[in-house]
Amino acid sequence: MARADLRRSDEMRRIQIITGYTMHAEGSVLIEVGNTRVLCNATVEDAVPSFLAGSGLGWVTAEYSMLPRATNTRSPRDISRLKLNGRSAEIQRLIGRSLRSVLDRRMLGERQIIVDCDVLQADGGTRCASITGGYVALWLACRTLVDRGLLPRIPLRGQVAAVSVGIFGGEPMLDLCYQEDSRADADCNVVMTGTGDFVELQCTGEERPFTKEELARLLALGRKGTAKLCREQRKAIGDAWNL
Amino acid sequence: MARADLRRSDEMRRIQIITGYTMHAEGSVLIEVGNTRVLCNATVEDAVPSFLAGSGLGWVTAEYSMLPRATNTRSPRDISRLKLNGRSAEIQRLIGRSLRSVLDRRMLGERQIIVDCDVLQADGGTRCASITGGYVALWLACRTLVDRGLLPRIPLRGQVAAVSVGIFGGEPMLDLCYQEDSRADADCNVVMTGTGDFVELQCTGEERPFTKEELARLLALGRKGTAKLCREQRKAIGDAWNL
Amino acid sequence: MARADLRRSDEMRRIQIITGYTMHAEGSVLIEVGNTRVLCNATVEDAVPSFLAGSGLGWVTAEYSMLPRATNTRSPRDISRLKLNGRSAEIQRLIGRSLRSVLDRRMLGERQIIVDCDVLQADGGTRCASITGGYVALWLACRTLVDRGLLPRIPLRGQVAAVSVGIFGGEPMLDLCYQEDSRADADCNVVMTGTGDFVELQCTGEERPFTKEELARLLALGRKGTAKLCREQRKAIGDAWNL
Amino acid sequence: MARADLRRSDEMRRIQIITGYTMHAEGSVLIEVGNTRVLCNATVEDAVPSFLAGSGLGWVTAEYSMLPRATNTRSPRDISRLKLNGRSAEIQRLIGRSLRSVLDRRMLGERQIIVDCDVLQADGGTRCASITGGYVALWLACRTLVDRGLLPRIPLRGQVAAVSVGIFGGEPMLDLCYQEDSRADADCNVVMTGTGDFVELQCTGEERPFTKEELARLLALGRKGTAKLCREQRKAIGDAWNL
Amino acid sequence: MARADLRRSDEMRRIQIITGYTMHAEGSVLIEVGNTRVLCNATVEDAVPSFLAGSGLGWVTAEYSMLPRATNTRSPRDISRLKLNGRSAEIQRLIGRSLRSVLDRRMLGERQIIVDCDVLQADGGTRCASITGGYVALWLACRTLVDRGLLPRIPLRGQVAAVSVGIFGGEPMLDLCYQEDSRADADCNVVMTGTGDFVELQCTGEERPFTKEELARLLALGRKGTAKLCREQRKAIGDAWNL
Amino acid sequence: MARADLRRSDEMRRIQIITGYTMHAEGSVLIEVGNTRVLCNATVEDAVPSFLAGSGLGWVTAEYSMLPRATNTRSPRDISRLKLNGRSAEIQRLIGRSLRSVLDRRMLGERQIIVDCDVLQADGGTRCASITGGYVALWLACRTLVDRGLLPRIPLRGQVAAVSVGIFGGEPMLDLCYQEDSRADADCNVVMTGTGDFVELQCTGEERPFTKEELARLLALGRKGTAKLCREQRKAIGDAWNL
Repeated sequence: MARADLRRSDEMRRIQIITGYTMHAEGSVLIEVGNTRVLCNATVEDAVPSFLAGSGLGWVTAEYSMLPRATNTRSPRDISRLKLNGRSAEIQRLIGRSLRSVLDRRMLGERQIIVDCDVLQADGGTRCASITGGYVALWLACRTLVDRGLLPRIPLRGQVAAVSVGIFGGEPMLDLCYQEDSRADADCNVVMTGTGDFVELQCTGEERPFTKEELARLLALGRKGTAKLCREQRKAIGDAWNL
Repeated sequence: MARADLRRSDEMRRIQIITGYTMHAEGSVLIEVGNTRVLCNATVEDAVPSFLAGSGLGWVTAEYSMLPRATNTRSPRDISRLKLNGRSAEIQRLIGRSLRSVLDRRMLGERQIIVDCDVLQADGGTRCASITGGYVALWLACRTLVDRGLLPRIPLRGQVAAVSVGIFGGEPMLDLCYQEDSRADADCNVVMTGTGDFVELQCTGEERPFTKEELARLLALGRKGTAKLCREQRKAIGDAWNL
Repeated sequence: MARADLRRSDEMRRIQIITGYTMHAEGSVLIEVGNTRVLCNATVEDAVPSFLAGSGLGWVTAEYSMLPRATNTRSPRDISRLKLNGRSAEIQRLIGRSLRSVLDRRMLGERQIIVDCDVLQADGGTRCASITGGYVALWLACRTLVDRGLLPRIPLRGQVAAVSVGIFGGEPMLDLCYQEDSRADADCNVVMTGTGDFVELQCTGEERPFTKEELARLLALGRKGTAKLCREQRKAIGDAWNL
Repeated sequence: MARADLRRSDEMRRIQIITGYTMHAEGSVLIEVGNTRVLCNATVEDAVPSFLAGSGLGWVTAEYSMLPRATNTRSPRDISRLKLNGRSAEIQRLIGRSLRSVLDRRMLGERQIIVDCDVLQADGGTRCASITGGYVALWLACRTLVDRGLLPRIPLRGQVAAVSVGIFGGEPMLDLCYQEDSRADADCNVVMTGTGDFVELQCTGEERPFTKEELARLLALGRKGTAKLCREQRKAIGDAWNL
Repeated sequence: MARADLRRSDEMRRIQIITGYTMHAEGSVLIEVGNTRVLCNATVEDAVPSFLAGSGLGWVTAEYSMLPRATNTRSPRDISRLKLNGRSAEIQRLIGRSLRSVLDRRMLGERQIIVDCDVLQADGGTRCASITGGYVALWLACRTLVDRGLLPRIPLRGQVAAVSVGIFGGEPMLDLCYQEDSRADADCNVVMTGTGDFVELQCTGEERPFTKEELARLLALGRKGTAKLCREQRKAIGDAWNL
Repeated sequence: MARADLRRSDEMRRIQIITGYTMHAEGSVLIEVGNTRVLCNATVEDAVPSFLAGSGLGWVTAEYSMLPRATNTRSPRDISRLKLNGRSAEIQRLIGRSLRSVLDRRMLGERQIIVDCDVLQADGGTRCASITGGYVALWLACRTLVDRGLLPRIPLRGQVAAVSVGIFGGEPMLDLCYQEDSRADADCNVVMTGTGDFVELQCTGEERPFTKEELARLLALGRKGTAKLCREQRKAIGDAWNL
């Protein structure tokens, strides 16, 4: 079964991670995965949500949104309907949990880092690109805190990256574009650490249930993809990574 | 590691599924899993959402909400904050996808069935109880359509049930109560069919990443739990199941 | 004129008041009046609304809501329309005023008790059932405060209960069910104390005005009904009532 | 017990009803009762709410609002809090029911008349002034329909007017101003027809319950007040009343 | 080209400024410009917005709204759509900026004055009437502060008034009524000080662009109109102006 | 008085207009003016707002928003406050009017073009950049309609571009950056056609009023700036401009 762009079933799309894309955020990244393009800006705030006040612990949260014309047909803005899009609500909770899984909340101290993921152009895999790019933006914001002498070192225990995998035309495939995703029988968003452990796993068989064996093949693909993405993250961060 | 209620690590809590709990809904179920108590009411509507109009296909959707004092401390109602709770948004999307996975949308025809899951009392596992109880409410609403001569038979291709599993004190455990859930290192919500295939899988390692091996053990527990729940569903439906 | 359920015109429906229905609330009651079923949960909070801060006075307020399928046709949730239902707004103000009328605000001290009235199943008289059941939930929450040594005794000066009466088919009738209520010429919600005084009186002649004589007959029926309800309240509370 | 403005206990404040106060509405009235000043504008719309479509019946509804500085301290606008004030919700439902009680819905036909009651200055009794003035605005809007040849005659079966009465310093008093109302033990809003029958009765004893005898004295005062208001309504409408 | 009301092209409509129109506000004005009628109430609050806390500076802000039937067809209230009308948002920002331009924020001290402009009847030029009348209400509220000994003198550096001018039928005209405004090729809202300097200038050529020469003629008319309005403001304030 | 970036007082910042920036929109432009960066996407819809249905006329409207971290400190999203930012409301109305001023609504026919202006990075002049870039996006969307054979030619009667000018340190300056704008005594947003006529003019003297002479100097600068911008627009469109 040939893919739209002639990739192999286990081949990622072209990845580009541009750091410092905007000038105001403490950490700013534009990530492109194929035609999907997400702007990830990390903001450091000195206050934490009220449930953490006085705890000495920090927090990372995420917001996710698509620009109205990031997609093929225009979607109205949330504010025009006065409701946060249900899909956005689900996705931003996933991004937040994923990023927090590698956070050393005590080392961060009573600060909150908000990672805004705004999709400029969508072609499948926007939540995974948000996690992968959001991690780099978060790292850069932490780096800013270190550079300002506010933290001794980066309060992250490892890397985290995400990729979508799915069964399309009966075959497991890595990194689905929109056209593939919309016709997949089942798909997983696999969030893994740099050491190959799981952080989040969201698998859906809305079209049909999937078997244990299919799951195993999907997870193997996911492991391959996230390993590749972790290499790209380190490349984007550059020499600072090893400091 | 002893559990709060002295259950074995692979033991479900007491399950009770009361059908016909309220008199107005086409399908009504009160499900109790331990102290968790969810009222699931299925409503049949003759119209479908606009994206399906004229398609000949039906739809199933879900709404999930907790009563303000379903939990240990009172939560304000969504309407008082003018925002759908983010957790509720995530959960009701999961319930809807899970129920649709066994739906024969063509056989249902251009009708929508809304499954309202209202948590009267929460003690962990409310989303799983909603899926398990919601399936029975959906089945009963379909039965009402059959009884009224509007459908030839139940437009469901199988059963679907859900259970939470998690790693708590280093050990995989089945069917977490709130106290266990809030201290778990990682947990999965496992949604499976009556034949043991996966419908949805949501695993989270917010406290720490989890390994492939841990995942395998969690999924095995999930399979055991959902099999038990499917038996309870059939028992609740009773003789009508075999018609 | 025969009533749907063959009751006499001055006969109440079957009343059941179950205390301790849920486990988290300081006071919890499930009240059933015929087919009407309302869950009343009372929550104690240590803060009062800002207009009472520093006054030494307490407050009781109520929230009222119907589950979407409490009625014959499904009503959308308030949050989906982003507006508190006008009828709910009117009713919860009535419940709050009624309960406050017997409250010793100074004895309660700077605490707020919120009484959530959620209608699980509606068949007429839901606001009256909410007041009658809400009173018991409030009493139980006060009892919890006494048991915890936070109050010397129950800060309530008496009982309060409510019943609907109406003119239906030209005849005054007690405790209207939905079918009767929807066809009544005029109806009153009568809120009275255990000693037979008025707390609130809301009479409406939307279909036609009503006379002074009709009002007198309705109020006499209301007195009879609330007396019966007060007995049921004391029975539900049990021996603790006399302590 | 002397009243703030030295009125007798059964004496109304000065009443002024100015018709044609604004130029756009089909019926426009500025009503002043003492210092309370309400602008009542009635708008005729050719459509009815969906639940009446095709029924051949008309509808009257009301909206009530206070300007931010109608009161002694400024209240934020509803839109700034994104919530309809609960008190306004309760009041506008009362106004709507009161006006509909004398409406011949079949004669009006499938039209809706919206009566906007905007309080320019508040000094107690704003809901009653809204009903009394709203009736005249509604009458004038109907008159406009008659004048345009769209209706054969005014589709109103009688008059409706409202006054507040209350127990203040132990004594029943007619037409409470704000200072009296805020310190009343109990108060009633009495809505009556021109023939002295009841349309709505809302009595509240938030400070203390009230007796049957007190109620009787309050209703007698209410009857006196509404009779006076009905005379003022007819005077404001003028000769057209008898056509 | 004759105007609807036979005015000359450089002639203002009749202006009336009634001070003390309502009794609660610190400054209250009803301004009429032709058939346009706006109630301007200024409220003094002891707190400033958070961005000014501790700065020693005061603030003036405005809110603008039209009653539903201020116009020829009824507009729904903002709260019924849950959105502040976009036009209102634009206008109230203009009013606020205009009034602040003559405010001595240091002399006012950490107080906020809110100027509510509610349009009772609209016939073009409501935003200009709001600025002109709002200035007088603001002046009166400041006067109240002086009278109470809270300020040494009026903290306003000058007058501000506004008028609309437009090109209608090819000719520049002063003070457009609604009928003229809705058919104008271009129009300006000119906000000027009592000494003839500009405070705000908002010119729009939605129908067609306008030239530098047309702009010059419009501004000259605006200067004439605002000079007249400033005289009316001083007349309304009366002798107090010179103190 | 030296400018932050050593520009002359009549010198524009570097301008870059990238066409085809995203792949889904009918017209897509990324405009950069100095550090200000706005993504302008034009969407063609086949329906018009209801007030134009059946008129044969088209419509152009705009939406404007800033990403949360487009600015130096993070702004919460509109949806988290449930309110469209007042400044955004004002700006998007300006953009819409400006673009409509050169639109041939009859030639466009019953179609709506929505121009979304999303500020990725802000450094002053975002509304002007939105108009200038939005015009190119609108032109490209029209071009798409021509290319698809749906329109005979571009339904725009000319060009429109905008620049901010202001008095800063006593001197009129062209194209203010944020640092200059926030300290300007007065500033104008000048919207002009390619032929040097005015489309919109919004001048504000919040800090102090400004004179007729100052206005004249500001407008001359604005004319110079918009002429330059119009050249850049034509350059970005390229050869297609002359077809």
